[in-house]
Amino acid sequence: MRYAIVGTGALGGYYGGLLARSGHDIHFLCHRDADFIKTNGIKVESCRGDFHLGNVKAYSSTQEMPVCDIVIICIKSTQNHLLTELLPPLIGLETQVVVLQNGLDVEEPAEEIVGKGRVFGGCCFLCSNKVGPGHIRHLDYGRIAMGAYRGKEGMGPRGDERTLNAIATDFMNAGIEISVVENLAEARWRKLMWNVPFNGLSVILNASTSALMNNTYGQQLSESLMREVRDIGLQLGLPIEEEFVRKLMQDTERMVPYDSSMRLDYLAGRPMEIEAIFGNAIRAADRVGAACDQLRFLYRQLAFLNQRQSKPLID
Amino acid sequence: MRYAIVGTGALGGYYGGLLARSGHDIHFLCHRDADFIKTNGIKVESCRGDFHLGNVKAYSSTQEMPVCDIVIICIKSTQNHLLTELLPPLIGLETQVVVLQNGLDVEEPAEEIVGKGRVFGGCCFLCSNKVGPGHIRHLDYGRIAMGAYRGKEGMGPRGDERTLNAIATDFMNAGIEISVVENLAEARWRKLMWNVPFNGLSVILNASTSALMNNTYGQQLSESLMREVRDIGLQLGLPIEEEFVRKLMQDTERMVPYDSSMRLDYLAGRPMEIEAIFGNAIRAADRVGAACDQLRFLYRQLAFLNQRQSKPLID
Repeated sequence: MRYAIVGTGALGGYYGGLLARSGHDIHFLCHRDADFIKTNGIKVESCRGDFHLGNVKAYSSTQEMPVCDIVIICIKSTQNHLLTELLPPLIGLETQVVVLQNGLDVEEPAEEIVGKGRVFGGCCFLCSNKVGPGHIRHLDYGRIAMGAYRGKEGMGPRGDERTLNAIATDFMNAGIEISVVENLAEARWRKLMWNVPFNGLSVILNASTSALMNNTYGQQLSESLMREVRDIGLQLGLPIEEEFVRKLMQDTERMVPYDSSMRLDYLAGRPMEIEAIFGNAIRAADRVGAACDQLRFLYRQLAFLNQRQSKPLID
Repeated sequence: MRYAIVGTGALGGYYGGLLARSGHDIHFLCHRDADFIKTNGIKVESCRGDFHLGNVKAYSSTQEMPVCDIVIICIKSTQNHLLTELLPPLIGLETQVVVLQNGLDVEEPAEEIVGKGRVFGGCCFLCSNKVGPGHIRHLDYGRIAMGAYRGKEGMGPRGDERTLNAIATDFMNAGIEISVVENLAEARWRKLMWNVPFNGLSVILNASTSALMNNTYGQQLSESLMREVRDIGLQLGLPIEEEFVRKLMQDTERMVPYDSSMRLDYLAGRPMEIEAIFGNAIRAADRVGAACDQLRFLYRQLAFLNQRQSKPLID
């Protein structure tokens, strides 16, 4: 299968790099890094072994790229409005799309372009950074939980299982840990249970995961947000066991001090993935009438910072 | 009447200074500023006219002070644990106490010492700072709403109305705008409706009042917190009209950009009045089973910062 990697950053550079290394036909959209990558290739420094790719098929625009079988979206969800322009040149009759982004219903913009039943989503558990053009530093983890996107209500078509499994096989052969999940929404909400507290609070309280976990109130806030997110999930019909709260708290306590992607975005002055992680979760809660006071409060605090950051300070 | 001013800072220096200027017998507890003030007096720069007091009765300890008719508590509520030591030397059979502090049930520590029915509370609407020893800068406002403290449940004795009126008369004659209120709890909760959003959010979002009011989400957060505080007040039986929310929002919009006392405390590394303003309001809400999710969330965020600030940073 021919793959397009839309966005050659921390995530696309790492997964795309592994796929290319294992011999697949991979076409990278690299925006302004295209010339650099054509000349110098992609360099991945990884805790699982460094590697370098030469002869990378790098492009600055999707207009120059061939139609692909599988298009993997690796830009940030804050850029999804660009997909109406980026995606069409890559899409043939049979093309299917995989959206590897944080948050909820991030597949929707792609689905609007290619149609229902042709979009998969993946939750990535990956710590990596782009440290320069075509230069990726992979710090830890890397697992993907992938499944068919079935729309906001979860009632859309099931998607093509054969393709899903073929993609998973290609990823596995490339050395990427991946599991195919029956219920993508459940995987998304389980991930939200972590992202909501640790992305949100890390920005608002200017704290790493360990600063939050080493503080009585940081723990209370995190756990209480997790429980609220779980309760919304339950009301959406997703079977998330109560024990999972404790597991996430324990896992986080054992993690090395970690700056969430949202905190890094905020500190770098980039837009934060507030709508994907918070806004869409609140809208889902509102649809089923689930309580989400803490989530909404934190959302508004983040949106305050986002709005203040995006325009010149007045006072 | 002989007055003690316990704490000669931004508030005690200003009100005590005005009372002394109008000829009352005022004894100031000045802690480490005592020697300086004995020599140099108290200097008040005020938007309503500067003045200087010489011959100030200044003390470094209440042990050296005479028993007084009225003891006015002007320290911060975060220091109230000191009252068990500070108050007794000032208290005679007839002494009554006025607590001029932010928050809720801040009169309780004094009441435990002097007994029920002998403590008044005052909500102060005052912008002033202590800029040096015995040097107060009064920026704006100054009104006090004073009434009898009747305990957490509001069922305690009504207090001595004659004394209350006598104090109010002395204050008025000194040029202090003061009103005697029938229901101190109601005045406290009305003030909390402002203090909760604008003290709390100013710290968490690092924002002045105008930064909050100039931002869509800052407005939403502030108004939503105000409504939650009002709802708790209603469930406590306090008649706070809905219109009051709009009034507070409009008043704040018209204010000059203002750094709340809590933000100044936080920036200066001093403890914040979190328990008086947030903790006690949450406990009151819990007693009547009123919802206070946002209040509790903001409380925990502030307590996180307080706890982190009070010990050396680990990461």
